[in-house]
Amino acid sequence: MEEQTIPNWLKKRADLTPDRIAIHFCDSSITFWELFHLSTKTAGQLSTVGLKKGQFVGVLLKNHQDTVLILLAMQMLGVKAVILNNRLTTEELIWQLNDSRSSFLITEDAFERHIHEFTRKIDGLTIITKQNLFQRKVSSPEILDEYHMNDVCSVMYTSGTTGKPKGVLQTYGNHWWSAIGSALNLGLLEADTWLCAVPLFHISGYSILVRSMIYGMTIVLHETFDEEQVIKDIQKHNVTIMSVVSVMLRRMINSLNDKTLPKTFRCMLLGGGPAPLSLLEKCVEKGIPVFQTYGMTETASQIVTLAPEHAMSKLGSAGKALFPSQLKILNSSGRKAAPYEEGEIYVKGPNVTIGYLNREQATKDSIQNGWLATGDIGYMDDEGFLYVLDRRQDLIISGGENIYPAEIEGVLLSHPEISDAGVTGLPDEKWGQVPAAVIARNRGSQLSEEEVISFCTEKLAKYKVPKKIKFVSELPRNAAKKLLRRKLSELF
Amino acid sequence: MEEQTIPNWLKKRADLTPDRIAIHFCDSSITFWELFHLSTKTAGQLSTVGLKKGQFVGVLLKNHQDTVLILLAMQMLGVKAVILNNRLTTEELIWQLNDSRSSFLITEDAFERHIHEFTRKIDGLTIITKQNLFQRKVSSPEILDEYHMNDVCSVMYTSGTTGKPKGVLQTYGNHWWSAIGSALNLGLLEADTWLCAVPLFHISGYSILVRSMIYGMTIVLHETFDEEQVIKDIQKHNVTIMSVVSVMLRRMINSLNDKTLPKTFRCMLLGGGPAPLSLLEKCVEKGIPVFQTYGMTETASQIVTLAPEHAMSKLGSAGKALFPSQLKILNSSGRKAAPYEEGEIYVKGPNVTIGYLNREQATKDSIQNGWLATGDIGYMDDEGFLYVLDRRQDLIISGGENIYPAEIEGVLLSHPEISDAGVTGLPDEKWGQVPAAVIARNRGSQLSEEEVISFCTEKLAKYKVPKKIKFVSELPRNAAKKLLRRKLSELF
Repeated sequence: MEEQTIPNWLKKRADLTPDRIAIHFCDSSITFWELFHLSTKTAGQLSTVGLKKGQFVGVLLKNHQDTVLILLAMQMLGVKAVILNNRLTTEELIWQLNDSRSSFLITEDAFERHIHEFTRKIDGLTIITKQNLFQRKVSSPEILDEYHMNDVCSVMYTSGTTGKPKGVLQTYGNHWWSAIGSALNLGLLEADTWLCAVPLFHISGYSILVRSMIYGMTIVLHETFDEEQVIKDIQKHNVTIMSVVSVMLRRMINSLNDKTLPKTFRCMLLGGGPAPLSLLEKCVEKGIPVFQTYGMTETASQIVTLAPEHAMSKLGSAGKALFPSQLKILNSSGRKAAPYEEGEIYVKGPNVTIGYLNREQATKDSIQNGWLATGDIGYMDDEGFLYVLDRRQDLIISGGENIYPAEIEGVLLSHPEISDAGVTGLPDEKWGQVPAAVIARNRGSQLSEEEVISFCTEKLAKYKVPKKIKFVSELPRNAAKKLLRRKLSELF
Repeated sequence: MEEQTIPNWLKKRADLTPDRIAIHFCDSSITFWELFHLSTKTAGQLSTVGLKKGQFVGVLLKNHQDTVLILLAMQMLGVKAVILNNRLTTEELIWQLNDSRSSFLITEDAFERHIHEFTRKIDGLTIITKQNLFQRKVSSPEILDEYHMNDVCSVMYTSGTTGKPKGVLQTYGNHWWSAIGSALNLGLLEADTWLCAVPLFHISGYSILVRSMIYGMTIVLHETFDEEQVIKDIQKHNVTIMSVVSVMLRRMINSLNDKTLPKTFRCMLLGGGPAPLSLLEKCVEKGIPVFQTYGMTETASQIVTLAPEHAMSKLGSAGKALFPSQLKILNSSGRKAAPYEEGEIYVKGPNVTIGYLNREQATKDSIQNGWLATGDIGYMDDEGFLYVLDRRQDLIISGGENIYPAEIEGVLLSHPEISDAGVTGLPDEKWGQVPAAVIARNRGSQLSEEEVISFCTEKLAKYKVPKKIKFVSELPRNAAKKLLRRKLSELF
């Protein structure tokens, strides 16, 4: 049996639909033909610099059309891109560059501060800025005609809420299947246009790139998330799909006021953790079609999504596993959980990572017989719909009761004067742990701690009501806008 | 590396969208939930009869909802269905049952005549009619939870224009990828409904079944092709896609008269050999969106299709290889042909068969490094669009000139009084071979041999003008309505 290959997807796409728009970025647009030729040119420049098939190469870049060219050039060269989160500290970046044994780093002048430190502290790392790269002579690069499904395409480090981050190996096959699973769920219209205001260094953004090539679909790429600009561009470019996390969606809803999105907008793909019910209800009111999803770096983006027909009746559920994938819940005794019984979420499918870079033991611990232990807690209802409760390590155990921060956050966020909220567990002599909340109020709001507690007392069991409240102007979130719960405790 | 699996696609579909209609047949409709449960029941009955995972089991059935249940039950049991063409003679069927070493045959009372002979002539074959099967007690069957991509799902014998037919092995993966490749080309709408008036025993019909489960798409299943009924059902069930071969399409066009198909009808998937230009032009006139395709039993249906944006500008082309697949032309010296240079068509991709049943040598001869030699002749233009000329074995060589029967047939079919036509080569002392035509005239037409020859002389080089003409009431076509050219010579 030969190993499975697929044609170089950018080259193939440029052959099939050369004249379709691939990317709108700022005020320019390029077709798939142009994207292929520009990426090939970039591949030539990367070759000149010394990049070779099979190497691990760091990438530290902002959302930009140039970043797309560099990432696609690396795919075509068979270079394994170690895609770094550009919001990390210098020390964190150095750790990941060393851990991945990257021989090169492609970055940009804007990260001069980091570059200086890298040069000083990392031996044998060749650093090239895109400004420098694009001035190089172009050689004729050796472009892959086919991608092997099992070859590693990219590495992304997990946010690592506990311990050191691990590099997740994402194969060409993982990305391919992720795109296929999503298409089988959402359908595939010729008019589809996907707005990407999430980071390209995160799987939520990178996966949009891959879908674009496989579907022949236009991307509207934004440098950063700006709700006004997003709403404008949805109109201007007839955007049909957008990937968001709760906090982005909430800002869009606020900014929309009494307006709504155009009828052609057909899917707001909501990931990045359990969404508060109040937010979902607001979207229903506004007629914004939210598809709640569940996924992670290890599954090359969404693996569980709520199908169109259940968007209303199963509000709050992440849905069912995508067509090529499977899902199960194991309870605390390691047995298959009954409906509504909580337990750890396990997933399986061709989009699931082959493992962690240079972490044989961690890989064995996490993946067994193709099933990945996600570390997340949830349950399935009697029709098999998944409800994600929380990260296992975020669970608060108070007097023997399980408390899910996400539930309390949902209640807090339903308060009209609260713009953002995070809940964490604090050590407590009597109860073991008690919940505490960090809250950002709307501008000008005078909401008091007592008012918050009284609001929660109406809606939550007593043991779930936060025992301490801290008001802040902004909550600690990572580049993907995910709440950094471990940082919350430090605020108390 | 673990072997790739996908969830049992019918079970998965019944879980994801249980209430969607799976099949309209005659006046009844069943949902995916019902389809899964009826097929599971059928699997239980097949188990009771003695069918086991891994066996080769013959299937000789007509287009019917029952046939769907039996074929899907076999998939779920892991039984390899040897799907027999029900238009074959008893002798041909016996040959294929023996060749495949089938231990069982599932058939129906309508084929009593064959059954009688099978019983007499084949040792150790257990024959079960569906009438008998459906009365059996239902046991609880062992349904596969996952399908292994590399496991054989079905076997179909190639029509065998030369030599004995060969059993083409089609894996679960072949069928899966075929469906994915088609979706990436045609898109995937929630409203899609595919009319199947081609035989389920042919890959053109069987592949619609597979797509239905993977896409969650409704099928309108017809027992036989009847143009009036087809046109009625396209209206009634809002059909969006239909698979046809030229002769079916021609009959539909004639039957439509000055009407056309509804706007929601978005794709007439035209396969089964090169289509005459006159027919394609008529479809353009009528606004029927024809997607010319090229495929075969060995590629689990279409592998090359004309993309929407080129439907008009590349009329007559079969298009480009589907996203997961590749295509090349080798000239007579075995080198990659230049644009417009004719040669043999080679295809590669995950939908290409792993080989022929019990034919190691034939498999090696046909498939090398993943590339299948199709035996078809064609060329690519300078933009890489494929034009299929003919089957290599149908080629007529006359005085050193290559004559493609399909080209002459195209001219004949453009004559307003000719309803069907076939061209073959006859031995000739002077020229080696000369072309001869078999023609079916419209009812009441008095068209003469001289008139036909004079018509051809206007449109064709002299050496291509048929030297002999034979008028018949009906041309020899196989069950898939494909012209049986080898039978034409016998008419002279």
